[in-house]
Amino acid sequence: MRAEIVSVGDELLKGQRVNTNAAFMARALGGIGVPVGRVVSCSDREEEMLAVFAESLERADIVLVTGGLGPTRDDRTKQAVQQLLGRGLELSEEAYANLAVRIKQRGLEVSDSLRDQAMVIEGSQVIANTKGSAAGMIIPCGERFQNHYLVLMPGVPSEMTAMMELTVIPWFSALSRSVIRHTPVKTVGIGESTLAEMIVDIEDALPEGTTLAYLPHAAGVSLMISTIGRLRDEVDRDNRHVVDAIVQKSGKFIYATSELSLEETIGGMLSAGGFTVAVAESCTGGLVASRLTDVPGSSAWFLQGFVVYSNQAKEKSLGVAGELIETFGAVSEEVARSMALGCLEKSGADFALSTTGIAGPSGGSPEKPVGMLCMAIARKNSGVLLSRTLFMHGDRELNKLRFSEALLREFWECLRAGLTP
Amino acid sequence: MRAEIVSVGDELLKGQRVNTNAAFMARALGGIGVPVGRVVSCSDREEEMLAVFAESLERADIVLVTGGLGPTRDDRTKQAVQQLLGRGLELSEEAYANLAVRIKQRGLEVSDSLRDQAMVIEGSQVIANTKGSAAGMIIPCGERFQNHYLVLMPGVPSEMTAMMELTVIPWFSALSRSVIRHTPVKTVGIGESTLAEMIVDIEDALPEGTTLAYLPHAAGVSLMISTIGRLRDEVDRDNRHVVDAIVQKSGKFIYATSELSLEETIGGMLSAGGFTVAVAESCTGGLVASRLTDVPGSSAWFLQGFVVYSNQAKEKSLGVAGELIETFGAVSEEVARSMALGCLEKSGADFALSTTGIAGPSGGSPEKPVGMLCMAIARKNSGVLLSRTLFMHGDRELNKLRFSEALLREFWECLRAGLTP
Repeated sequence: MRAEIVSVGDELLKGQRVNTNAAFMARALGGIGVPVGRVVSCSDREEEMLAVFAESLERADIVLVTGGLGPTRDDRTKQAVQQLLGRGLELSEEAYANLAVRIKQRGLEVSDSLRDQAMVIEGSQVIANTKGSAAGMIIPCGERFQNHYLVLMPGVPSEMTAMMELTVIPWFSALSRSVIRHTPVKTVGIGESTLAEMIVDIEDALPEGTTLAYLPHAAGVSLMISTIGRLRDEVDRDNRHVVDAIVQKSGKFIYATSELSLEETIGGMLSAGGFTVAVAESCTGGLVASRLTDVPGSSAWFLQGFVVYSNQAKEKSLGVAGELIETFGAVSEEVARSMALGCLEKSGADFALSTTGIAGPSGGSPEKPVGMLCMAIARKNSGVLLSRTLFMHGDRELNKLRFSEALLREFWECLRAGLTP
Repeated sequence: MRAEIVSVGDELLKGQRVNTNAAFMARALGGIGVPVGRVVSCSDREEEMLAVFAESLERADIVLVTGGLGPTRDDRTKQAVQQLLGRGLELSEEAYANLAVRIKQRGLEVSDSLRDQAMVIEGSQVIANTKGSAAGMIIPCGERFQNHYLVLMPGVPSEMTAMMELTVIPWFSALSRSVIRHTPVKTVGIGESTLAEMIVDIEDALPEGTTLAYLPHAAGVSLMISTIGRLRDEVDRDNRHVVDAIVQKSGKFIYATSELSLEETIGGMLSAGGFTVAVAESCTGGLVASRLTDVPGSSAWFLQGFVVYSNQAKEKSLGVAGELIETFGAVSEEVARSMALGCLEKSGADFALSTTGIAGPSGGSPEKPVGMLCMAIARKNSGVLLSRTLFMHGDRELNKLRFSEALLREFWECLRAGLTP
């Protein structure tokens, strides 16, 4: 069983919106062993949709379509499907009841244009919309299309994801006969080509049905080990075998073999050790604190952050000596260390992390160029554990991200060294 | 002249990567009046690429392909193009020189697999890679494909964007005969359907060649007004006419008619007024500071941030009274106001913003549910300007984003009220 994804909307073709829906749907289908053959973004003009739907239905057993079900005039997906299949519309009582409740909650009347959102293609299975008004549909397309399925969902991500999880995936899971296992291998502090050289033997000897993908991102590279087959036990075993081999070869760069982020991994280590942390940020401007507090339950181990952009703030909030800044400059390991120590003292945390640097685009000099980062990590009763200077080569936002990643990487290494002696 | 985009890579079909490249390329092409007809993501298997390239070359004058030019074994794009066009490869001296410099910088030798990255399809115009090793190509495909063009670029975003900006866009700009104008209309504090009702007359009377798209995002909706035509003056005039009409109808919700973000708009207003700001964040965990410091030059007006997650930090760093927290709870407008006043005093800024709330997933109660936000804004010599309580309904990260957006919106309204009396 194979699927294709069709994302409808001129905003995708104009680049005004990034197609995150397709990635979500592809992952969800992969989880039930249904590979995706193509992803197509097309215009919301009827004749174009008609052509794209027909082509995809020829190739794929399931065609998932998002977009064009709303109440505005550029929502024409149902019209295109009516033409394609030669079917009419019928009112879904279930969808209408949902719609009426939602409209009433907002103190409005159900108008004709809103009522249209409860009209579905004849012969479809309605997908309840728990997050919005427009009904979704699973449509068996009949013999003309080899009994393939067309699935229509709204383009609003929250509505689509709820429909996928509650209805679409359970429905097609029952029809799919292959199983799949994806295992992410998350690394930090190593580049794509170095990692590739390190694991070349493993890549040369992958078992049948298993693939290895490199997923480089702004601050490093991750791997995804995917295995597809008929039997759950065999698939899991083959997949685990490859992952174990990679961990054996390059374990010192691997912080997770699951979907955990670096900050979640750090949070888990802090929780396990009963430690707390605080941060003092200049050039990262709050990003390190924001990443750490993205982790659910971080209030148990994240105490406090100081975003000390100005020299005055560094002095007043953290007790950094004015002479230190004058002598070495605000961007220096000396100041980074003093910030970490001040942060330790002011917060009472077990660990304190600091950044000071030049994110750009302005503020650089030949000695201290844009992209320069000084950072430090200090620990209660031990003082400064380390300080480092690094140089990045991105624009302002990328530099901020890479600065924060470098600091979290160093902190992760400290924790690992301390926790597994 | 029309284009299509083909994104090669199994990681896109597995949903392991979101296709941001396509959006960038579509926007860049739109800027020179070349509309994109379809975006297709396909597998990196040769036969699949062959089919997709051939189909797209039938329909479009220019087919931009990214991915599959690297040194690893799943990089097969050039092989597919060789088959499609029946052409061989030749060494590009220019690409080889670039490669050799890059490899040498990293202290390595040029191996055969690396040398392959300087091999290009016969008869192509080489696109220099200023950010990496693999050469790009502009390939005139000959009469069999109606002299359409195939453009090959690496999938690494920084390499592709540099190639687009330095070579591809200038090259095709010279060939394109239509001009286009996109104007974003950025709103805050208004939903999609309310905005649609407000401007229905304008939408009914759009001039020919002009379209209006709604771009809902996690924290609101923006509009994009696009006009395409032959003459720059007419296109600009029609576009401006529609934008002006929308500003007239719904100006109080519009913070920019350009690509400025809300934080950039705020930064501009602070700069213009000579004001400074500081923030005290609990539930947003540094995100407000990080967003504000994403703005280049923010060090001129952003003084300091306090990420006070624990009650102790609120008391110690901002002087919030322990009794206040005990009486009203940490999540209360009373505490938000006290945080803002403490932030004002500690930072010496002209404005102080504060958040305290419950991002979730845990920590909620019937009286104070997950998604609850209390915020306050204070001004030097005026004290608290406002405090508000709002309720959001997302997951942790979405709540943090919406909290930050709500606070920045209120601040923007304060500044606007104060600056344009």
